[in-house]
Amino acid sequence: MAPAPRHPTMADVAERAGVSASTVSRTLRGLTTVSPEVRARVEQAARELDFAVSRQAASLVTGRTGVVAVLVPTLNSWFMGSALNSLGPLLRAAGMELNVYVIPDMTERTSFFERLPARRNADALLVFGFDLTDEETARLDHLGMPVIYVSQHAHGRPSVYVDDVAGAVKATRHLLHLGHRRIAFAPTVGASGFSFSSRARLHGYRQALTEAGIPPDDDLVITMAFEDKRGLVEGVGHLLSLRQPPTAVFAEQDELAVAVIHTLRAARIQVPEQMSVIGFDDHQVAEWFDLSTVAQSPSDMGREAGELALELLNEPEGDQTRRHIVLPTRLIPRATTAAPSLPQGEGASES
Amino acid sequence: MAPAPRHPTMADVAERAGVSASTVSRTLRGLTTVSPEVRARVEQAARELDFAVSRQAASLVTGRTGVVAVLVPTLNSWFMGSALNSLGPLLRAAGMELNVYVIPDMTERTSFFERLPARRNADALLVFGFDLTDEETARLDHLGMPVIYVSQHAHGRPSVYVDDVAGAVKATRHLLHLGHRRIAFAPTVGASGFSFSSRARLHGYRQALTEAGIPPDDDLVITMAFEDKRGLVEGVGHLLSLRQPPTAVFAEQDELAVAVIHTLRAARIQVPEQMSVIGFDDHQVAEWFDLSTVAQSPSDMGREAGELALELLNEPEGDQTRRHIVLPTRLIPRATTAAPSLPQGEGASES
Repeated sequence: MAPAPRHPTMADVAERAGVSASTVSRTLRGLTTVSPEVRARVEQAARELDFAVSRQAASLVTGRTGVVAVLVPTLNSWFMGSALNSLGPLLRAAGMELNVYVIPDMTERTSFFERLPARRNADALLVFGFDLTDEETARLDHLGMPVIYVSQHAHGRPSVYVDDVAGAVKATRHLLHLGHRRIAFAPTVGASGFSFSSRARLHGYRQALTEAGIPPDDDLVITMAFEDKRGLVEGVGHLLSLRQPPTAVFAEQDELAVAVIHTLRAARIQVPEQMSVIGFDDHQVAEWFDLSTVAQSPSDMGREAGELALELLNEPEGDQTRRHIVLPTRLIPRATTAAPSLPQGEGASES
Repeated sequence: MAPAPRHPTMADVAERAGVSASTVSRTLRGLTTVSPEVRARVEQAARELDFAVSRQAASLVTGRTGVVAVLVPTLNSWFMGSALNSLGPLLRAAGMELNVYVIPDMTERTSFFERLPARRNADALLVFGFDLTDEETARLDHLGMPVIYVSQHAHGRPSVYVDDVAGAVKATRHLLHLGHRRIAFAPTVGASGFSFSSRARLHGYRQALTEAGIPPDDDLVITMAFEDKRGLVEGVGHLLSLRQPPTAVFAEQDELAVAVIHTLRAARIQVPEQMSVIGFDDHQVAEWFDLSTVAQSPSDMGREAGELALELLNEPEGDQTRRHIVLPTRLIPRATTAAPSLPQGEGASES
């Protein structure tokens, strides 16, 4: 590493551009009160001098950090990757940086909510996909900055989420229309506990069954994780050993659906002939497996959440409590769902 | 959003803990010059007062930002997700925050290297998987902070990378040992251009062929992207329409390998009977497809890179130029590679 050269100051840029230091400051903070001509002159001078704005220095002037923080349970997921991949460039285009807090387990989560390290180090916080307790939400209410709930619905607070209930209803109805009566639901669980989406999709699954006059049966709800091979075999084994086994499985995620199909095929159970399987996401893997699924767009979600954050930062007095953005889902029928080979009567589990 | 309450200051914490403000500052910055007893007292007082350290205030004292910045081409990839997922908690345990710059295309990349926004907003920079020009590397040499090259090998600079050449040699040798002589290589290209890994794997592929006395044939090297369905069909079509088509394909990534298998099967070409396919990564999807592959661990890479960053921050005068951490790969033979059905002579493409 070469020794750090002396960095040029804002005064150096001001002198070169022939404007005041405060004009340089306003220009580099992106304020719109600077004319395009002056802006061009200041930016050229800054470039020529190799001047970099220090967030620390700028924040003392503006009271802002120029940072948007996100709180995520993991970065190692298709959902988070797609969402942050659209959020990052959007924030940067607005001159903001992206700070990421990864909270992989309950210990870290407790510590985050105790210390709230984002408090003075960011201007806004996006909280992704945790099923927060009332206490945690109350903590965030007092952060002193806009907090946006993403991939979850927080009452009376800005939220951006997919209509998980409606999506799960679509998946379940598709199986019902094909003639299935014994339909299993496989929620997935992460290290941080159940997600908001898990609960919402379970709700939608039950709602569609009830609509069709089929009483939900808790024996058919079995939690699995796609990374846990042993758990998958045991979960599938549980379903196959029921007195009335299901003829279809609705998995909370495409990756779990594909892992279930892999497990079924290893046991020589044909999909969809002997068991239909449907997922949720329209992940890239769904196409490779010809998997029926419910499509959502995490990349749209990241974009909407970023835009909402910028809006709340620019209009802090707006009516923030009513900003709920609900994104749609679409059923994508493919080759892993079909009519059951042996139709069963309604309520067969009771006989 | 509730109005921001008055935040307690470092002086409040000092008073409650019965120590000086500078001791509070040293404790909360994690310096080891504070005794465990004093540390416990200060931490308890800070907790009781709901005190959050402001990076801005702390950095004026220490000249540090408490932030490690990472520069990544995308967040929407298994590789980046796994690497950052291990890096984030490691940095947080050391009291550092993670700042992410996503640079999805050449325009953004040019702008990043022109402005170098990380300069005063971070204490160290991790640059992931770009094939940097000499000019870009020279820019980073003058950043005035440790810069660590991850998933790439930068001469004379701290680097953490997988031995891509050796991994590609393993994949190619496996196909050669099975009897293949016409072996295609499919590199993948992102929006930011070729990655360092692409070039290194191409090199390893050619090296293994040359070792076996087979002259590399550029007709067998065809770039594809797993998200581009049309490009995949055309790429596979190119290989199948050669005078001497390949009997095996080595894809740069597992996701591309799986997309190639999907494309081949849609054209009723059996894998591995009519075409062997091997990937690189040991991505989750490899198991579901019984894909032969070369395993690497991006999560180890994220951890090693984070540890190296912390080490360079704590010992800025150490011998930084020689820190090269090279991670191993392992061949994972599964069901998508087999002996070719019609053995071909060496140099058959010339006949």
